[in-house]
Formats: sequence, C-alpha cells, structure tokens
Amino acid sequence: MTRSPIAPVSPGRGRLRPLGLDEVRITGGFWARRQQINAEATLHHCREWMERVGWIGNFRTAVQPDGRIDRDRRGREFADSDVYKLLEAMAWETGRRADPVLDAAIADLTEVLAPAQEPDGYLNTAYGRPGQSPRYSDLEWGHELYCYGHLIQAGVAQSRARGEGELTKIARRAADHVCATFGRGGIERVCGHPVIEPALVELARLTGEQRYLDQAALFVARRGHGTLADIEFGRAYYQDDLPVREAKVLRGHAVRALYLAAGAVDVAVETGDEELLAAVVRQWETTVARRTYLTGGMGSHHRDESFGDDFVLPPDRAYSETCAGVASVMLSWRLLLATGEPRFADLAERTLFNVVAASPSEDGRAFFYANTLHRRRRGTALRTDTDSPRADSGLRAPWFAVSCCPTNVARTLAQLSGYVATADEHGVQLHQYADAEIVTTLDDGRAIGLRTRTDYPAGGVVTVRITRSTDRPWILSLRVPDWTAGATAWLVDPDGVRSPAAPGTAEVTRVFRAGDEVRLELPVSPRWIRADPRIDAVRGTLAVQRGPLVYCAESTDLPGGRDVDAVRVDPRTPPRDGPDDSTVTVAGELTEADEASEPNEQRATAWPYEPHSHPSPRPEGRTTAAGRTEIVLVPYRSWANRGPSTMRVWLPTTEPDTTTPTER
Amino acid sequence: MTRSPIAPVSPGRGRLRPLGLDEVRITGGFWARRQQINAEATLHHCREWMERVGWIGNFRTAVQPDGRIDRDRRGREFADSDVYKLLEAMAWETGRRADPVLDAAIADLTEVLAPAQEPDGYLNTAYGRPGQSPRYSDLEWGHELYCYGHLIQAGVAQSRARGEGELTKIARRAADHVCATFGRGGIERVCGHPVIEPALVELARLTGEQRYLDQAALFVARRGHGTLADIEFGRAYYQDDLPVREAKVLRGHAVRALYLAAGAVDVAVETGDEELLAAVVRQWETTVARRTYLTGGMGSHHRDESFGDDFVLPPDRAYSETCAGVASVMLSWRLLLATGEPRFADLAERTLFNVVAASPSEDGRAFFYANTLHRRRRGTALRTDTDSPRADSGLRAPWFAVSCCPTNVARTLAQLSGYVATADEHGVQLHQYADAEIVTTLDDGRAIGLRTRTDYPAGGVVTVRITRSTDRPWILSLRVPDWTAGATAWLVDPDGVRSPAAPGTAEVTRVFRAGDEVRLELPVSPRWIRADPRIDAVRGTLAVQRGPLVYCAESTDLPGGRDVDAVRVDPRTPPRDGPDDSTVTVAGELTEADEASEPNEQRATAWPYEPHSHPSPRPEGRTTAAGRTEIVLVPYRSWANRGPSTMRVWLPTTEPDTTTPTER
Repeated sequence: MTRSPIAPVSPGRGRLRPLGLDEVRITGGFWARRQQINAEATLHHCREWMERVGWIGNFRTAVQPDGRIDRDRRGREFADSDVYKLLEAMAWETGRRADPVLDAAIADLTEVLAPAQEPDGYLNTAYGRPGQSPRYSDLEWGHELYCYGHLIQAGVAQSRARGEGELTKIARRAADHVCATFGRGGIERVCGHPVIEPALVELARLTGEQRYLDQAALFVARRGHGTLADIEFGRAYYQDDLPVREAKVLRGHAVRALYLAAGAVDVAVETGDEELLAAVVRQWETTVARRTYLTGGMGSHHRDESFGDDFVLPPDRAYSETCAGVASVMLSWRLLLATGEPRFADLAERTLFNVVAASPSEDGRAFFYANTLHRRRRGTALRTDTDSPRADSGLRAPWFAVSCCPTNVARTLAQLSGYVATADEHGVQLHQYADAEIVTTLDDGRAIGLRTRTDYPAGGVVTVRITRSTDRPWILSLRVPDWTAGATAWLVDPDGVRSPAAPGTAEVTRVFRAGDEVRLELPVSPRWIRADPRIDAVRGTLAVQRGPLVYCAESTDLPGGRDVDAVRVDPRTPPRDGPDDSTVTVAGELTEADEASEPNEQRATAWPYEPHSHPSPRPEGRTTAAGRTEIVLVPYRSWANRGPSTMRVWLPTTEPDTTTPTER
Repeated sequence: MTRSPIAPVSPGRGRLRPLGLDEVRITGGFWARRQQINAEATLHHCREWMERVGWIGNFRTAVQPDGRIDRDRRGREFADSDVYKLLEAMAWETGRRADPVLDAAIADLTEVLAPAQEPDGYLNTAYGRPGQSPRYSDLEWGHELYCYGHLIQAGVAQSRARGEGELTKIARRAADHVCATFGRGGIERVCGHPVIEPALVELARLTGEQRYLDQAALFVARRGHGTLADIEFGRAYYQDDLPVREAKVLRGHAVRALYLAAGAVDVAVETGDEELLAAVVRQWETTVARRTYLTGGMGSHHRDESFGDDFVLPPDRAYSETCAGVASVMLSWRLLLATGEPRFADLAERTLFNVVAASPSEDGRAFFYANTLHRRRRGTALRTDTDSPRADSGLRAPWFAVSCCPTNVARTLAQLSGYVATADEHGVQLHQYADAEIVTTLDDGRAIGLRTRTDYPAGGVVTVRITRSTDRPWILSLRVPDWTAGATAWLVDPDGVRSPAAPGTAEVTRVFRAGDEVRLELPVSPRWIRADPRIDAVRGTLAVQRGPLVYCAESTDLPGGRDVDAVRVDPRTPPRDGPDDSTVTVAGELTEADEASEPNEQRATAWPYEPHSHPSPRPEGRTTAAGRTEIVLVPYRSWANRGPSTMRVWLPTTEPDTTTPTER
C-alpha cells in the first residue's frame, strides 16, 4: 500500500481520497471546542472510570500468577473493548497534535494489556483461563472478535498517527491469530457483534497484507448463513438472517448492523465488488428513508437496541443509541469516499450535530447512552460516583454498566478533522464546515492550501481562502447541504460573482491564486419540518431545524414551571432566530396540560378515550390555551445541560384537532 | 371462614359477595364458545406442550435417584409455574362441570409433582438440588415464591371445586414452608415476581388460617424497602422502589405490578386496612387514566415488559402482554368486590373482550403473548411444532420459550362465570352479560334464580328472566357500561316501563315473581373514539368501538392487497354496522402509501422529513387518494386469524393534514 494518511479510513481505491489529521486541522468554532474538551476532559475521564470499575485491572488480574481472573474479573464480557477504544481515541489525539504526555499514557496502558496476550496471539480477559469458559465457546454473546476489532482499530490508529508501536504489534498478533483460527478450515463462523470486519480491512490497508482483507471478506460472506444460534431476538439481531448482499434494509441491533455494513463497504471497495457495494448503498437508502429519526438517530427498540419496522419511529421511545450514531458516521463516510456522493456527508453532518454531539455533556464528563426525542418526566439527578443503567435516564451519566458510548464518542471527536475534506485528481472537496486549515497535495503532486472561516452552524457563511495553489486549474468543491432544499444557497467565486447553489455540490474551477476567496452562503434561518405521514407517531406535529441543527422545546425555557407537553405551536408563523445565537423562537400557546410529570389527582382519573361524535366535556383545562405566547427552543444536542427537564422535538400544532372537524 | 364458593376470589368481607361457578353458568354466546374451546382444546394443548418441552418432565427428573436435574432441567427458572397454572385451569374446569376424565388428569399430574416436594415443603425444580444454585439464592430472578403462588392458587381452586385433594395438601405444605422461612426472623425479603401475596390470602380464606394472611401482609409491607437488588431496570421493575401504600401509580413490570396490587387489595380487605385499599384504588385510577391502551391493555415497554411514563402509549410498540390483561382483570374484580363500583367491571369487560379474548386463536391452540395495536409488517407463518420468541410475531404461536400466557388465559376462561354476577343482602348484581343461568341465595337465605339471554356484544339487548324468587322485595342491579356514555341505554322493568339508564348501575327493586323479565337495551352502534391529546402517538387518528369491542382495520379486508397504512377515514361519517354481525364499515380512502411492508425501491430513498413552509413535491402517490371507499373493520380480538396480515386500531383521518394549513 502506497499511502496511509493519519485518517480513520484509508481505502486503496474509491472516488475520493481522505485527508489526514495532519492535513486538516479544525482551528476554531463548535467542533474545535468539542475536540478540546474531549482531549482535556473526556480522555482522562474514561481512563479514570475504567480504572475505578476494574476494566483496566482485568488485564492485570489475568496475568497474576496467583490471580483468580475467573472470580475477580469485572464488567461485562466486552469490557476489554472499551480499553481499546480509549487507546484508539488517545492515538488519534496524538495524530491531531503532538503530546508526549499522551504518548506516555498510551505506552503505559499498552504495557498493562501486553502481558495478557497469549503466545498464539489470543487476548481476552473473559475467556480461556482456568475457571473461565473456553475460548470461542460463545460466539453469539462472547464478543471476542468484537474486542479484537477495536484492538486492531487502535493499533491502526497508533501506526498512522505515530508510526508502528507496541499497540500495533499486539493488534497484528491478534489479527494473525484470528486469521489462523477463523480462516478456511478453521472455525467457520462469525462473531455475534461485528466490527472485526472493518478493522481487518483497515489493517490490510495499513500493512499491505492480503490475508487480513481475505479474512474480513470471509467474515462478511459467512454472515447471514445461520452460523450463529437462533436467539430470542432472532438471527436478525446479529444480521445472521440474510447474507449482506441479499439484504434490502438494515435490521436488528443497530450498532451491529452499521458496523457490519461499514465492513462490507471496506471489503467491497478493496476487492472491487460493485455488487456488494450497491447492496449496502441500497440498504443505506432504505434505512435513511424509513428507519431514521430526524436527528439522524437510528434504532427505536429499547428491548434489543434494534431498528424497528419501517416508519416505527416514536419520539418518546427513540433509542437512537449514541454508538449507532458513531457507527452511522463510519458507514456514511465510507460510502462518501467510495462514491463521492454528497448525500452521505449530509447524513454524517446531521448525525454528528444531533446524535454524536448530543451525547456528551458540556464538560465532557457525562454522556447519553440513548438519545430520546421526547422526554415526559424530569430526570433524577445522578450521582457522579456510580455508574448507571444504560438508557433510561433523562440526564447524562458519567459512566454505564455497558459503557460503550463515552469511548466511542471520544475516538470520533479525536478523528473528526478527518471527515472535513477529501481530495482527488481534480481538486479538493469540502464536506463539513468549520474553521480549518487544510494543506494537502493533489494526486498529481500539486500542493494546495486552504483556510476556511465560518461560525457555522450558528451562521451560514463559509469563507474559503486559498493559502497555497499552483499555476494549473483545479476544482474546489463545496457540499451544499440537503437541508437547504427549498431555500437558496449562494456561491460567490473569487471574482465576486454570486450564483445560486442547489443541494449537492457547488464547484469553482480555475487557476486559484493564494489569497483568492470563495464564499458559500447557506440559508440557516430556522424552518418548520414535517414528517412523512407514514411516521404515525408524529402526526399533527412539526419540528424545527436551523441549518443542520434540530431544535427542541425544553421545560427549562418555559414560564411557570410548565412541562413541554403544554406546548402547541402555530405553523402559520415561521420560526425565527431567538434572543441569542443558539436559540429559536416560535409562536404558540401553552395549554394547561402540563402536569404530566406528576399525576394531578383531580385530573388523573378520567378514562383518556371518549366518543368523538358526542363529545363529552373534557376535564377543565385539559386543552385550554393560556393565550398566545412565544416559545424559546434550544438545539437538541444541548438539552439536559441545565438540570432535570422535560423535552420534545416534535411539537403539536395549534391547528384544530383533526379529530374534531364537526365542531368547526 | 364460613363460606367458600367455587369462585376465583372469596373475600371474608367487602361490598359484594362473589358467586361460585356452580351458581352462575354461562350457557351460550361468545364466552360459552370460548369456554368450550378452552376445555376441549386449550387444556390438552398446554399439557401436550409442557410434556414436549420438558417442563412436566422436570419434576420427574428431579426425583430420579441417578437424575441430573442440574444438567437436564428444561425451560426457564419459572417453568414449574406453568404446570401449576394448568392445574389451576383444570381445577376450575372441574368446578364448572363434573368431568371424571379431567379429575383423573389432575390426579395424574399431581402425582408427577408430589414426589418432588421436599420434606420441609420446599418445591422447585430449578434450585436446591446437587449442582443447582441453593434455595432462595436469587430472590430477584429465581421466581421460587412466584411458583408457590401459582401452586397455592391451584390448590385453592381444587379445594373449592372438588374438595380438598392432594394438590391442596401440596400447596398447604408449600405455604407452611413459606411462612416458616419468610416469616419474622426468617428471610426478611420478597420475591422478584409477586403472586404469592394474593395466593396466600386466598389460602387463608380457604382454610381460615391466620398465618397465611399474616405472611401475605408481611410480603406486601416489605415490598418497596429495597430488599431486592437495584438491577439494570431499576427496583421499580419489581415494585421494590416504593412501599405499596405510598405509590401513586402502577409502574415497572406490568404483570408484577398488577399481581402485587391484587394481593394488596386482598390483604387490605381481610385486615380492614382502608388506607391500603385507597392507595391501590388511586393507583388503579391513575394507571387507567394515563397508562392504559384503548383495549384495556397495559404496558408499552418491550424491553422490560413494563408500564411506560404517563401517556407513552404508542400503538405500534404496544406490548400489552396477555398476562397483564389477566392480572388487570384479577385486580379489577377484587376492587369491584371490595367497593361495588361498576367502573371496575367496566375495565374488566374491556380487557376481557379486547386483551384476554384476543390472545387465543379461534381454535384455542395458538396465542398472542403481546397484543400490539398496530402491525405494519405481515407476520411470518409459524411452525406449529416449535416454540416461539415471546413477543415479536404478527401471528399467534402455539407455545413460547416463556409461555405464561396460554395457561393464564386457560385458567381465566375456566373461571370466567365467576365474574358475571355477585350478590349482597339486597339482591343480585349483574356485571358481565352473556347467556347465563344464575341460582343463588341472598345473604338472608332467600333463594333466587335468574336466566339472562342476549347476543351481546353483537347485540345490545339483555333480557333477564326471573326463574325463582321470594315474596319479599329485592334489588336486581345491572351494570350500564361506561362505553354507553353519550348514547342512551334503556332499562325496561317487568311492567314494560322504559327508563333511560346512565352509565353506572341501573336497578329494579320489587317483589319479583318467577317469569318476570327485566330488559336492558344498550346502544351498541359503532362509534368513533378519540384519544386524549396527551397520547401523542395517536394524534390525528380515530378508533372505532362497538359496544365493548374495539375494532381494527386488517389488510385481509382491503382491496388490491393494500396494507392498512393506506387507510384514511372520514370522521364526518359515523361508522355503521357492516355486512355481517361482527364487522363495521367506515367511509374513507385508500392512499397509495401501501408499500410499507416491502420497500419499494423507487419510493424507498426519500428522506422522510421536509421543510413545511416550502413544500417540495412529494414522491408521486405518497399521499394520493385512490378515491372514496368503504372500509370494513373487524373486532380487534379476531385479527390475525386469517393468515398473515397488517393491522391497525387507530386510523388516520382524511382531514387536511394539520401540518399543511398554508395550503388551504
């Protein structure tokens, strides 16, 4: 392999070439702030918690001569993987900026896990030692290959960021062990939780070793042939119900489905398997059209953390797991690199702003595991010194019994500048907008430099200044987000010529000179959003989006201690910018139906269904409006940062109830 | 105790006195048919399946001298309980009608389990033997007391139906063991799954032994004090978060919550604890007003089979477990006996017709575990020879890995005539309407006979003929169901005088003579039903109810293979009776949005959210009406008896979309 930038994904072919973390730096604005908090708070927070709950200690216990790992091991069967994901996050962070302290921390942590690797490359603290279940005795739930997947991704990250180190070597030994054990003639099955697939392809890309790619391709091809048991959730839970290339839509456990699809894209790209790539594109399309929340969140079933049937997207039961958001960005990014189509960057942007960024608290020390779109009951203040059940809180928690999301968010934020721009033989493509410095060379060796300035997503103006160019023409491409549909975006070229820019891609082709400026003006005014009528659960409501940001009503902003279920909005009045940069104001009413969080005994006893043709008097106040008012909305991603609250994204309208037309 | 009728519940005090299965017989109509199928098909079906899956065999294995129960035991930890519930169903069936074959079957089955009871009364095939976990080592999930609860209920049923037998003795020994082990100074904790509480009170009622009541009261009083671990679902899952008398609403696992509440009522009634009774009444009220589906179904969370927050009642994610319906009837019946208030019979009726009767197939050999109110995807035909995951099918299944519902339905149907009528010192009260023969004595010893004739719920006329009376006046009370609100019911007395009857209770007081007839005329015309606007998930839709029956659209009845999501109904036209007794016809349209079950690739790729103020063209046909049509609805309880189908109870209206007012 000839090139391996410090990039989260580095395909050997495809439409676009990723740029490394050394080629794109986010220098200011929203994402720079999130990256800073990630580096300064979250990485340390995760390390500290994994020491506290014993997941790092498991590696130490495993190798103690008199150790009792079978008795003393802490955490769930996949706890090792979070140590690896933290290492991956730390590695990307060292690729983003040199940090000797972080280098040392990686080396320290690597030293903890290295001795636990067995001579044949096997590495897992939950299996195979005296008193434990045998290796690979529970492929359905054991997560051993899943853990390797994250270990390998960490090793790849280290190698790309800082050159091959001890972590990379451990990862290669594990990968060699996987190939030896799960190759043809070996255990011809798959892991209950995919992620080994994209990891092995990445390792093949890093090392040029074909066998890692072959093994990944084997895992993708085997899936869907029932090599795993038919569990209560069905084989669809781990995508073992249908071969990847036959499936029409993503289904089952959302994170599993998305990781597998990412791995399938990687295999398809490296092997030139257009049919497989087309199958995943089709699955992505259908999933986005039918099984995705407005936020980009995926998965509505709490029971098995899975996608629901088409259009089963109840806001108040949205699961929308943070890790599914991370996995969705991984998949969309791969599809963007493979195809060059901006729709994949559109979904990545939506998901980054409204799922990935929604998970961590402002201080980076607490997280949402699930990201509901409607919370009716105020959360209970959480203790900061104990972990939490994974999904049922209305407030972010410092750590979870199943704590996949903090480290997943951390590794995504650390690698985020890798998603900003790409290059090809014709020029440079900007996909995500932030203050950034970009320096790269085109495929023909021409050196190019750009500097973007913007207060996006608060503002819609993105200025791209050429800082280095050549004397031959090249193309600067800018994504015009899908959310601009119906409004007008403008592209201003270096000569000041303004042209309307439709959703998709806007381009300027010319011999750029240093100092030239291209400006993209995106219409970020807030807008009402309505849903396809097949999404039953939001009928009769509207949401607000401003640029890529989905907004919500939060009780914190309502007068008189009202809960959000009192909000009725007037769709005839467009939403408008609120009193400060981040808020939006809508016209509406506050009904008296605001006692949802605490049953009001006088109103609690009415049967909530009544004949329609003979309306009986409703309990007083149940739908009485308290008069017209202005309602302040805040970005969805920021909710629950001001104490316990209720929240909703989809807001009922003040229009006459569709169920009472005879009263008109 | 002075009286113990062949009745499912026999309180020592309370407003109303239950009548036994020998005093009330259902002689024809809907419920008679269900009782017949239950007796002729379901009981045998359950026995056969429990032999096949080894749950009965567990008792045999447990006592084999060379047995390996720890290795060979089959089924979940609570499998014993289904054997007991089947025994209870069989026992009530023998109380309903003499059946020597069934007597012998009970004796046979009792002989299987008797040897497994240990000398101290302990009886459970999952714990305590070599290689198994110790007794009571996992009160959270072990279900040992839960199994006793069902064993004791079976023993009580046997004793009431046929006189004390071996099963009753086994149950008493188990109860004695519970008192010895869990009394004061013993294990001062509770079981993770309530049901021992009502069972012990019933045993106290049967035997007159105070200590059973005391132990039940202890269990009720202990609950809510955190004697069980704080699990991932939280202590609310098993109601150990709050003392029963402090709770405001039912919460956590629905079946657990309802069984516990039933037991608390039993304790309150027997101990004269008005505060405890009032607490449960309050919980019932709030739960019915805020956490109950139109069908009477309870529980919207699949993840932990629990109640959701107030008004979280999405039809397409309704769990509405069959057993929660059974448990809700148990609770409502107890509250009716305690208070005499007809609202409890109203909910019982709704739940019996729309949950309990919805679970079994027409042939009584397949069951719904969960009872969704909206099914978007056609179910897959199920094999009749393998058990099924518990909740995710669109078709009834013959058996489940967790198979609590078939035996729970069976025992409810066998005891059903016990819910039809009660007596007190003033007369007789009719609560549920069916063809029935009622013979009883009033508290003062007067003998009374009634015969009811009706084709309810198809028709609304109930004729009550006095077959035996005395020369003193007494009161015949008839429940006027809550669903008549807004229409007019009529009561016709023996002299032919017609009076309007408001929801609640209608009474005739006189010196009845044999041959006198009282007629109740209930307005069973179909009607639109609308929901409280706080139930977000059904905004903009209407349902249809006809008498106590909730109706649904099923794809089987739609032309051209349409799915139910194509249905739009016109709320300005009242629903009317359909082409046959059981159907209803509504006016509406069928949109083209009917491809939900199989992604149509041309329409699958649209992002399903769009700006409202600048409507972009919707994909062709997405909301195009195919013209006005008549749509046939069927009773909800009958759906999925004609092959795979899609189904919905709440039907979107044809009214202009509330989200597009600017287009008017």
